[in-house]
Amino acid sequence: MRIDGRSSRELRPVHIHPHYLKHAEGSVLIEVGDTKVICTATLEEKVPPFMRGGGKGWITAEYGMLPRATEQRNAREASKGKVAGRTMEIQRLIGRALRSVVDLQQLGERTVWIDCDVIQADGGTRTASITGAYVALVLALARLVEDGKLESLPVRDFLAATSVGIDPELGVILDLNYSEDARAKVDMNVVMTGAGQFVEIQGTGEEAAFSRAELDELLETAQAGIERLIAVQRQALGEWAARVGEKRITEQEGAE
Amino acid sequence: MRIDGRSSRELRPVHIHPHYLKHAEGSVLIEVGDTKVICTATLEEKVPPFMRGGGKGWITAEYGMLPRATEQRNAREASKGKVAGRTMEIQRLIGRALRSVVDLQQLGERTVWIDCDVIQADGGTRTASITGAYVALVLALARLVEDGKLESLPVRDFLAATSVGIDPELGVILDLNYSEDARAKVDMNVVMTGAGQFVEIQGTGEEAAFSRAELDELLETAQAGIERLIAVQRQALGEWAARVGEKRITEQEGAE
Amino acid sequence: MRIDGRSSRELRPVHIHPHYLKHAEGSVLIEVGDTKVICTATLEEKVPPFMRGGGKGWITAEYGMLPRATEQRNAREASKGKVAGRTMEIQRLIGRALRSVVDLQQLGERTVWIDCDVIQADGGTRTASITGAYVALVLALARLVEDGKLESLPVRDFLAATSVGIDPELGVILDLNYSEDARAKVDMNVVMTGAGQFVEIQGTGEEAAFSRAELDELLETAQAGIERLIAVQRQALGEWAARVGEKRITEQEGAE
Amino acid sequence: MRIDGRSSRELRPVHIHPHYLKHAEGSVLIEVGDTKVICTATLEEKVPPFMRGGGKGWITAEYGMLPRATEQRNAREASKGKVAGRTMEIQRLIGRALRSVVDLQQLGERTVWIDCDVIQADGGTRTASITGAYVALVLALARLVEDGKLESLPVRDFLAATSVGIDPELGVILDLNYSEDARAKVDMNVVMTGAGQFVEIQGTGEEAAFSRAELDELLETAQAGIERLIAVQRQALGEWAARVGEKRITEQEGAE
Amino acid sequence: MRIDGRSSRELRPVHIHPHYLKHAEGSVLIEVGDTKVICTATLEEKVPPFMRGGGKGWITAEYGMLPRATEQRNAREASKGKVAGRTMEIQRLIGRALRSVVDLQQLGERTVWIDCDVIQADGGTRTASITGAYVALVLALARLVEDGKLESLPVRDFLAATSVGIDPELGVILDLNYSEDARAKVDMNVVMTGAGQFVEIQGTGEEAAFSRAELDELLETAQAGIERLIAVQRQALGEWAARVGEKRITEQEGAE
Amino acid sequence: MRIDGRSSRELRPVHIHPHYLKHAEGSVLIEVGDTKVICTATLEEKVPPFMRGGGKGWITAEYGMLPRATEQRNAREASKGKVAGRTMEIQRLIGRALRSVVDLQQLGERTVWIDCDVIQADGGTRTASITGAYVALVLALARLVEDGKLESLPVRDFLAATSVGIDPELGVILDLNYSEDARAKVDMNVVMTGAGQFVEIQGTGEEAAFSRAELDELLETAQAGIERLIAVQRQALGEWAARVGEKRITEQEGAE
Repeated sequence: MRIDGRSSRELRPVHIHPHYLKHAEGSVLIEVGDTKVICTATLEEKVPPFMRGGGKGWITAEYGMLPRATEQRNAREASKGKVAGRTMEIQRLIGRALRSVVDLQQLGERTVWIDCDVIQADGGTRTASITGAYVALVLALARLVEDGKLESLPVRDFLAATSVGIDPELGVILDLNYSEDARAKVDMNVVMTGAGQFVEIQGTGEEAAFSRAELDELLETAQAGIERLIAVQRQALGEWAARVGEKRITEQEGAE
Repeated sequence: MRIDGRSSRELRPVHIHPHYLKHAEGSVLIEVGDTKVICTATLEEKVPPFMRGGGKGWITAEYGMLPRATEQRNAREASKGKVAGRTMEIQRLIGRALRSVVDLQQLGERTVWIDCDVIQADGGTRTASITGAYVALVLALARLVEDGKLESLPVRDFLAATSVGIDPELGVILDLNYSEDARAKVDMNVVMTGAGQFVEIQGTGEEAAFSRAELDELLETAQAGIERLIAVQRQALGEWAARVGEKRITEQEGAE
Repeated sequence: MRIDGRSSRELRPVHIHPHYLKHAEGSVLIEVGDTKVICTATLEEKVPPFMRGGGKGWITAEYGMLPRATEQRNAREASKGKVAGRTMEIQRLIGRALRSVVDLQQLGERTVWIDCDVIQADGGTRTASITGAYVALVLALARLVEDGKLESLPVRDFLAATSVGIDPELGVILDLNYSEDARAKVDMNVVMTGAGQFVEIQGTGEEAAFSRAELDELLETAQAGIERLIAVQRQALGEWAARVGEKRITEQEGAE
Repeated sequence: MRIDGRSSRELRPVHIHPHYLKHAEGSVLIEVGDTKVICTATLEEKVPPFMRGGGKGWITAEYGMLPRATEQRNAREASKGKVAGRTMEIQRLIGRALRSVVDLQQLGERTVWIDCDVIQADGGTRTASITGAYVALVLALARLVEDGKLESLPVRDFLAATSVGIDPELGVILDLNYSEDARAKVDMNVVMTGAGQFVEIQGTGEEAAFSRAELDELLETAQAGIERLIAVQRQALGEWAARVGEKRITEQEGAE
Repeated sequence: MRIDGRSSRELRPVHIHPHYLKHAEGSVLIEVGDTKVICTATLEEKVPPFMRGGGKGWITAEYGMLPRATEQRNAREASKGKVAGRTMEIQRLIGRALRSVVDLQQLGERTVWIDCDVIQADGGTRTASITGAYVALVLALARLVEDGKLESLPVRDFLAATSVGIDPELGVILDLNYSEDARAKVDMNVVMTGAGQFVEIQGTGEEAAFSRAELDELLETAQAGIERLIAVQRQALGEWAARVGEKRITEQEGAE
Repeated sequence: MRIDGRSSRELRPVHIHPHYLKHAEGSVLIEVGDTKVICTATLEEKVPPFMRGGGKGWITAEYGMLPRATEQRNAREASKGKVAGRTMEIQRLIGRALRSVVDLQQLGERTVWIDCDVIQADGGTRTASITGAYVALVLALARLVEDGKLESLPVRDFLAATSVGIDPELGVILDLNYSEDARAKVDMNVVMTGAGQFVEIQGTGEEAAFSRAELDELLETAQAGIERLIAVQRQALGEWAARVGEKRITEQEGAE
């Protein structure tokens, strides 16, 4: 039995509160157990200089953590004057993951800025960020459809993320909280689409290594968790859930 | 009549949610109209190097804003690699104001770190930060009393803050929201104690000036607003409200 | 009696040396007791990007201190690679104060850069900076009139600043030097116009608070001091003193 | 057929030149095709502050690239004053990977600084860095054995890394050069031990996703490549190759 | 004839005002023509970490320029957040030059901080800084003798600096002002001792080169100028001038 | 006899390997004894903003050192977030020296970026950088001639650099290695042209001074060394060596 009574393949309770902030084009508060992240999506009607004139859009992400989101207070990155390597790694991951399911050509020369700010941390902040940011992103893109700037959502599929790990006693477990993460010998973050394809796999054995059989079990466990996360995303998106991937179908029909 | 239907001397609805985060020794979410700030207080059992051995405690504050707290997205200070002048001004103000009602000698060689993070901004973020941070601070200090590290709250009085301003048409108004602030010809932030004394007055006429009579009206309006804010603080503090200022009385008795 | 023999409402000796440097369009050395500040005003024939095309001018200020202006050497901000919060607060104050008496519309799309560099510090450097910078600013704007680029000085009124405070023994005192400032329980900086209106009031009780009656006395003391500072400014400006506010009168006449 | 005539499962020519620099305790120049990296290992007889007194050692890595290692000149990170997110990601990866095969307890309170500097880049610089740094690390640790400071190499196993990817036309390919990497729809870096276990898997579909079957093929291809890289490492290490993992065996015997 | 009527081997008027600031242990204002530099020397009773326990003292220098010291305003280095290469070069030069005539052993474990701040610039600011800083340094060291902390001045000789250059029309000229410097094809800074020895020679042909004969003429011209600068230093130092080099004589006597 | 057996006027073995890297327009590895520097020249078809429209080209240089190029590891400047004063001084020197022999008018509105990265350091890295960078520069400019963008090499003369110094026992010595440099009482870097003219002389007596006679001996020793370095450059340039200075001759003929 796990510390919090969950079975090894059980997610923590997940809630996604859409339209959490009034100014952002898209926003959610996502809660995965005690991990809470505010995710916003901001639309900008231009792309970075290196992409201008190419006709394609761009999605970029930033990640932050309130100083007292954690058990010990962390110095504010703004005060330290530089962004930590861990932060950069996470924001690159979030941006890359979201871009993988968006049709940037259809988006046109627009940038979507994703901001994920961790209000309270208890493990899995990067995967919660991806899962929440996906919903904020779709809500912001829905705005473009509502305003007649796009005909359909330029989103090919659902996308969510979770963590899996190998506990020295319990073996493979899903959705690690902070104390589980601290004792795991292998830690893996998996990002998958609604169609069950992989977008990102980051598996790490800090001071350890893992076998092929363990890897297989980790991946299957992650997949089951992600399917349940996508169900929560569908609910948060309401009627817009049905319009994800719509365009792709149309195109395929056109191609026949 | 004001944009949002308030009378000129009316505060926006104010809510203070105590114990908002699980890790911090003290925390609140304060809502003043659409302005929402998370305030935390972190206890550290040492003081900065320049104060060591002096037997006194210290209170320091940091202030931040989520990039999309505002109508337009603001670049993250961590990404820009430096803290804006406005931010520094606000964090210095918050720290100074809170220190004015705390008995640093009684606190002993401890630091309280205050973090005010604006989740959503609609004017008055610095005064909401002070009002909310006061409650988070008392909650954290109460922890020291509960743990037997202090005999009584080292807090001499209540403390809250609000803004007042001169609207070109409506004259003196209380608790300006963002659009009111943008058109005000004079803007003033006032911090006061429960005893009705001033701790900080910052009045500014950007591209304008104001008379002594106007100043008097501004100060009276602010005082009435602050009394109501303190009533909300009392409620949020529950039984601890009665213990604010307690020590001072004891001391006076002892001195007789 | 005060440390240096002054009465409680007495300014230190004030000298303003106009045209102190040869390159700047306007410059002064201001001495207020042992506090010495070089103030320069630089004209630039454009405004910052965010103001372009608006037809209005801009005034911005920077403040610095030589490392050994103070009793203990302070590390150079250039070497530390960042500007302290105190410095930013002061430069924002100087700029805001000066803008309040300048007709930015009449100035046109020009920027005036104000630089205040403290050569020797003995309390009151920010108020001496404002008082001196005002003169440097008028001298630089006079250059625009002389060159035929402006018909009259775009300056509505005089402007000067001083500090007042509450000494634990002497009560309210004017123009605090460094040692007085260090022991004052309340410290207030006041910026006023020639017409006796307030432009900025910053009153602070560090680890203390002050009553309404004390506030009134502080403000009256400050006002008397500022009147005397403006008399010194008039002398330093020579014939240009008479042309301050000139335009406003003309406009009022035109409006009749 | 691939651009450079290789078959899809073929590595580029790999050379490891040990003892490449005279000052470093361990150093190599590794060439993987046209990718050339200088890897050094520096011994320091202390650990970072957060590890002191714990009896364990530490391995940390830094990564850099000469400005003209690439086809277009890249601005020097020192001149830009900050380290890019990509660089931080890579240096964290290198350090983590190397630590996974070192017995930090046996190493004792020492730090090994790994520096990987890319002299010429043609894809796969992070995996070449890991493969080369492993050899530099063992050479530096061998110095400790030679000097009598350690009884045996505190290294449990071999460790090497390579990249695999999915080319839109050729399918899964091994050890991508720069132009192959630019057109690959999936890119994966794999770090494995001599025993064939995984230490790190980082698979990314930029603007794409991949199936479980594709993942399996990628992993098998990577494994075959890494076995060949370890053979090259063995040669570069000469007689020290036989002493890798030695200690582990002794311990197991002792435990019987 | 030169722009300002000087002959080719003539210095500009030089004035050194000792004890210019009240807080610093040593200070001067040096004027060389229109170039004006405030030089201060600050004593600190410790040395940098890398020198502790060695029994020797240290002298370090910093250099700055007021933003409007020059014809065009220069952005403040503090605001830019970094020190320019030119500034670093100058501060390294000043420190190195001063150290060459100080007996650091005799100084003991103390640091002298030299600050040279250019108030007004018209060419030759680095050489004026050295010449002025030397006097500020001796004044500060004299304080140590007066206070009984040192028996004699730990200064072996006088030290001053000037610039020479080759004008395209006038040939070799001494002590270039800004406009002369701008058109010179060769520019050389020379630092010499009272005994006529070289401490530093920095000759540069920007987009040009110079012959051995030209070099000889440059050096002779510089030497004559430096002798006159040392005469001005002697006057500024008053009775302390006679005590420069005193210790050296004593030592030689002792050695006989 | 010197530590490494050289006579006092003998250079260390010098090798210049042209075309060392595949991407750069010009590149060499220069070895001067154990000092090894990679020098590259990158062509860019534009000049910095301040030079645009002037019709002239620009040459700028950057200098770096691998962390373990030295006996003790040096922290990476990128990690420290700022460039050391020493580095800035060297890169300014390299750029200035190279510009002195290039006809920037003939080069046209192009920038040549020079990068000198020290792989292994044993004294004389800045002079080796100049000597090697000169060859990389000519190789890059030769590319412009080959591509028909320039009719002839815009290079007026050869250029090389070496160090000389005064050893406390051996007197004047040429081309100091690291241990010689550490004990030298005078250190001088000299940059000269093929015609035997000086471009830069930087002589420094750290905690010492030197006479005119010593200076003369230093310069003669340097000149002899530089002639030999230019012979090595000629060899490395192959057929392009003959085309250095070619244009100047043509111009002189045309002028007759």
